[in-house]
Amino acid sequence: MELQQIGVIHSPFCQPDGVPIQPRYAHAAEGTVEVFQPFAEGLRDLGGFERIWLIYWFHQAAAARLIVRPFKDKTERGLFATRAPCRPNPIGISPVRLLAVKGRHLRVADLDVLDGTPLLDIKPYVPEFDHYEIRRIGWLSEAGSQTTADGRFSETKE
Amino acid sequence: MELQQIGVIHSPFCQPDGVPIQPRYAHAAEGTVEVFQPFAEGLRDLGGFERIWLIYWFHQAAAARLIVRPFKDKTERGLFATRAPCRPNPIGISPVRLLAVKGRHLRVADLDVLDGTPLLDIKPYVPEFDHYEIRRIGWLSEAGSQTTADGRFSETKE
Repeated sequence: MELQQIGVIHSPFCQPDGVPIQPRYAHAAEGTVEVFQPFAEGLRDLGGFERIWLIYWFHQAAAARLIVRPFKDKTERGLFATRAPCRPNPIGISPVRLLAVKGRHLRVADLDVLDGTPLLDIKPYVPEFDHYEIRRIGWLSEAGSQTTADGRFSETKE
Repeated sequence: MELQQIGVIHSPFCQPDGVPIQPRYAHAAEGTVEVFQPFAEGLRDLGGFERIWLIYWFHQAAAARLIVRPFKDKTERGLFATRAPCRPNPIGISPVRLLAVKGRHLRVADLDVLDGTPLLDIKPYVPEFDHYEIRRIGWLSEAGSQTTADGRFSETKE
């Protein structure tokens, strides 16, 4: 299982403090996904999609912890019941809005990642595949209102 | 960027032929996610969630191709506009239904992966984060009706 960086995400967020913790909270923040030349051919047909999954590497996440205090809670929780970045495999998934495709550069909005984030994959967002109506969301049903990161899971601060 | 296998997915599907191509088409197929002991502590609080994302490695996918003929189409498409498994980084994401947590074993339904699939990560499925109402789904708006795989992207057949 070996990863290769296929591109880089350029975003307005240059440090972990204040990065939106989900696309939902990104207030339409815009950025550019640069796909490296050897992979550019795979972007064909992507422009028809309104939203895409970015799969990326949390390159500034702290070492993995199995118990974390999530951004939206005051209680310690099991890591896999959270979306915190300090994971055994620090892989992030973000459904961002696709504004335009120009060659190997994608203009996107609702972007919630740090500038310079290594890109691993892009997949189309498809409601039939990705939408599920559910009721139980565990501890998040009583979650707090925090919507931006504060550095607690970043390499430099802890 | 180094991956480590944190568990293994046990499913009823032992060969690529006939595997549902998405949880939506899995007809509630059930299986077990076994999380390895060193990571088990991170499962705390997961039982409260109705659905979870499994992030995994397409271990039987063929070598990456940038242009593919998807299961649901007769036309060649850019890989990143499809969910085909033969990707530069063959990472899959599946939102499966969580039935029960027993120690480090998760009983799940709507399972669309091959038996023995290496597990990389688990995240809670959260409608506020993962639901987006969208209209444009590119070539998939005229997609065919195929719902199971046929080996075209697996290592053994091509």
